Amino acid sequence: MSANTETMTVSQYLLHRLKEIGIDDIFSVPGDFNLVFLDRVQDSGLINLVGDCNELNAAYAADGYARVKGVGAVITTFGVGELSAVNGIAGSYSEMVPVVKITGTPNTKSQASGALLHHTLGNGDFRAFQKIFSHITVTNTTLLPHNAASEIDRVLTECVQKVRPVYISLPTDVVDAEITVDKKPLNLALPPNPEKIEAACIRQIAKAVEEAKDPIIIADACAIRHHCEKELLELIEKTGLPFYTTPMGKAVISESHPQFRGIYVGSLSNVRVKDEVENADLILSIGGLKSDFNTGSFSYRMDTDKTVEIHSDYTDVFFGTYKAVGMKYLLPKLASVIPKREFKRIGALSNEVPQIDMKAMVPQAWFWPRMGQFMKANDIVVAETGTSVFGALNSHLPEGATFISQILWGSIGYTVGSTLGAAVAGGARRVILFVGDGSFQLTCQEVSVMIRLGLHPIIFLLNNNGYTIERLIHGVKRTYNDIDNWDFSKTLDYFGGAAGQDKIGFQGRANTAEEFEQVLKKVESHNDKINFVEVMMDWLDAPENLVKQAEASAALNRS
Amino acid sequence: MSANTETMTVSQYLLHRLKEIGIDDIFSVPGDFNLVFLDRVQDSGLINLVGDCNELNAAYAADGYARVKGVGAVITTFGVGELSAVNGIAGSYSEMVPVVKITGTPNTKSQASGALLHHTLGNGDFRAFQKIFSHITVTNTTLLPHNAASEIDRVLTECVQKVRPVYISLPTDVVDAEITVDKKPLNLALPPNPEKIEAACIRQIAKAVEEAKDPIIIADACAIRHHCEKELLELIEKTGLPFYTTPMGKAVISESHPQFRGIYVGSLSNVRVKDEVENADLILSIGGLKSDFNTGSFSYRMDTDKTVEIHSDYTDVFFGTYKAVGMKYLLPKLASVIPKREFKRIGALSNEVPQIDMKAMVPQAWFWPRMGQFMKANDIVVAETGTSVFGALNSHLPEGATFISQILWGSIGYTVGSTLGAAVAGGARRVILFVGDGSFQLTCQEVSVMIRLGLHPIIFLLNNNGYTIERLIHGVKRTYNDIDNWDFSKTLDYFGGAAGQDKIGFQGRANTAEEFEQVLKKVESHNDKINFVEVMMDWLDAPENLVKQAEASAALNRS
Repeated sequence: MSANTETMTVSQYLLHRLKEIGIDDIFSVPGDFNLVFLDRVQDSGLINLVGDCNELNAAYAADGYARVKGVGAVITTFGVGELSAVNGIAGSYSEMVPVVKITGTPNTKSQASGALLHHTLGNGDFRAFQKIFSHITVTNTTLLPHNAASEIDRVLTECVQKVRPVYISLPTDVVDAEITVDKKPLNLALPPNPEKIEAACIRQIAKAVEEAKDPIIIADACAIRHHCEKELLELIEKTGLPFYTTPMGKAVISESHPQFRGIYVGSLSNVRVKDEVENADLILSIGGLKSDFNTGSFSYRMDTDKTVEIHSDYTDVFFGTYKAVGMKYLLPKLASVIPKREFKRIGALSNEVPQIDMKAMVPQAWFWPRMGQFMKANDIVVAETGTSVFGALNSHLPEGATFISQILWGSIGYTVGSTLGAAVAGGARRVILFVGDGSFQLTCQEVSVMIRLGLHPIIFLLNNNGYTIERLIHGVKRTYNDIDNWDFSKTLDYFGGAAGQDKIGFQGRANTAEEFEQVLKKVESHNDKINFVEVMMDWLDAPENLVKQAEASAALNRS
Repeated sequence: MSANTETMTVSQYLLHRLKEIGIDDIFSVPGDFNLVFLDRVQDSGLINLVGDCNELNAAYAADGYARVKGVGAVITTFGVGELSAVNGIAGSYSEMVPVVKITGTPNTKSQASGALLHHTLGNGDFRAFQKIFSHITVTNTTLLPHNAASEIDRVLTECVQKVRPVYISLPTDVVDAEITVDKKPLNLALPPNPEKIEAACIRQIAKAVEEAKDPIIIADACAIRHHCEKELLELIEKTGLPFYTTPMGKAVISESHPQFRGIYVGSLSNVRVKDEVENADLILSIGGLKSDFNTGSFSYRMDTDKTVEIHSDYTDVFFGTYKAVGMKYLLPKLASVIPKREFKRIGALSNEVPQIDMKAMVPQAWFWPRMGQFMKANDIVVAETGTSVFGALNSHLPEGATFISQILWGSIGYTVGSTLGAAVAGGARRVILFVGDGSFQLTCQEVSVMIRLGLHPIIFLLNNNGYTIERLIHGVKRTYNDIDNWDFSKTLDYFGGAAGQDKIGFQGRANTAEEFEQVLKKVESHNDKINFVEVMMDWLDAPENLVKQAEASAALNRS
């Protein structure tokens, strides 16, 4: 053993490295092939173990946690457990969220002999599940005593650098195997941009900005995913350029920043934003992700010959590509060479609410700016796919707020698990969830974990009696878009049981805007407990941008 | 067009064939890529559409339905929807249950161009999900106008003949495409056994039986899965041999049949059964499936030189294999050549309950025979993995009862979805579910669908305050085996909401055996409604066979 090495068990080393990359809590469901490892987690004193109601919810929680803390992890058992998490991990892959998926697997002897164990496909194939995960992770491994140290380092480094999920199989008999390890810190830094290519790229961009009359910045998803918020802010402030975001880039920089001009979503944008973006003569697009729901169904009007696309691992300047020039190192250099322009603010963005009848149901057009007023600095806002996420784009978020949604993957039910994860990661930060009655039904049980842990999210359940986003796309009155009307306003009582009673703040229903205002006051006075508000809304009321998106989606299905 | 062909749409043809193989109901969750097909189902007048709360539950429901009706089907949307169903379909594959998994996918143009649509991995790969399903289905297909007729016939035939799941991708723009089809019925019959090989096999088995002093029959899982109950009963009655079943073969033939002697589970068997089986000098094993939990952790004592293994597609007589000789055609021929022996009944099997203190909590040792008394002819009994399934092996089931569990796959939460499917398939038949507090939390929401549909299962929730099976395997007092104590006795109120009130029979808690007896009377008087009984049990009380199995599993994990 050299001076830098020491002996420890595989589980100790794995936990040491997980902690090093930033994981303080792991989400889990127990199962007989992971129980020993769960003991090691609990006894480690390094990482807190959170038990979830099911594996999909645990995966969603790890994703939500990663969006707040930078990286997340989830432990399940083999086969039955991990396969329930597939959708969650696929969502993390699609949306570029680094989650470490750890599966407790049968002992290596059973695997080698193809024993007919429970939780197997009955065909002796112990590799099938790992192969399934290979489609939705950037890399995968089976830990064995001889490879564990190097494999743990390799997969965790890839997870962080590629900001995508990885898969680790941990056989029961490997958990406590002793290995010799080198504990020098992982090198998680990205490789530098190639010097000459980067220099040429900077020259061309600087020249383009200099020649442009109305250059703007659009900040998108990958600027968040690759943790370039600081670099982006520096670029924005040093250049003085106005900036816009996208649905997936929402709140990457504070929406109360004076240079922020709004969210661009192609034809779904508000008229002023659409005009400003489409009349700009140069667009610096940072971390663009041009999916259908992020672009108003591909209705962007951004000509290539006036667009600079800065990505995590390449940059396009008009029609030319600069390979391997990534945003992390490029943005600060651009910030230092582009001269500052004076920013002329045209009008402040605000959460102005329309006049409504306070005795009537809460209308969508009023609800979202009202929620913008309700939000406080550093809130974490989680918006479910459907009405909620389209609506929440119309709430201007305060300083330091984090916005969580799945614009690309769009798995309904995601936000309930994600809220749990975000609340665990957020500590004292307030978490506000907006979820519809339909989506809530997929993953409702995770509320019980929030109560058990004494977390204090505010859950707004928008009860519009069905899958409104789907009604707008197709089948407005079809029964398959109906949702059973649970006794939602008793949710915390049911899932909390007797032991949960003292952890519950306000729970109840708001039938009118007036009632809703009263409820908000009660919620504010129970900020240290979990709150659940059922907001009754008209079944076909929807944010205007959702109505337009639904029309576009329906047209695409028909085409 | 020839005389036998006609023109119809792809969806019409698919529905026609689904109906033909026995599907009257399809389980589903709506999503924007399957909405048009859902319309076609609802408008077909052929097949009833059942909406589920989430896709995993829908897959479980299709599995439970298939176990009662012979085949099941589930429709989800692309990506997000189908990936949530992976565990359910994998369970059907493992346990050999024929389920047709239909996914509504994006239109063929978007797929060909690799468009960056929502519900994709963002990498233009539209095939990844189908590849994932290729690991857990026997075949898969993407329907296109030019192949739809032949592909529908091919995959549905494989589903039925191989009694395992298949995967069908149905793009939105193919649903209404017109195709020319031939409506002659599918040929679902198995190929005949090879004549000469079968004849030799029969001669050898008949000779072995003739020479044996104490021949017995053990009927196992595959006799149920390959629908050989009738052939098996004929063999039993024509030969007069005593028969035993296994956990996975439970109730393949009525447990009240005079020749039935008990359930053999290797070292976990009761002493009499163990002695009888292990002292037999010839064992005819029909449809054996030797998984760990089906064999008392591989503790079978069945020497190959006294065992005939009759499977669905081959037969082993001692050390010799007769290829392609399957049980479906072999059993009736054996029944006709083996002379009848007189069956000497040694003692009747009964549901005798021990004396207990009726003022105390319900003990496991009393509960299961008491439940055997409670059951009626033709009941469908669903038992969750864990305490419930091990316990339910100790209830002798009445004539015509069906027993549903997942001994091999063992995915907790399965039974709640499966109960929904079994109840839809069972019509007037009574469905009785036994589920633990831990397992119920994974899939609880499906209770709301049972209420909506006016189904009338009886749900016994065994509240023993945690994952008892896991406590017995490992971590008896670990917090990860604790379960939050929901307000279980309000389950029907919560998930039924106001609209569900008139569909609810009895719901409540039984703290003692005396209370439990009173509750049973109330349940009996509400047989036409859904009933939910929370039975309080000691946290470490467990059926004796489970205690032994847990010890064996723990040893295997350590080995």
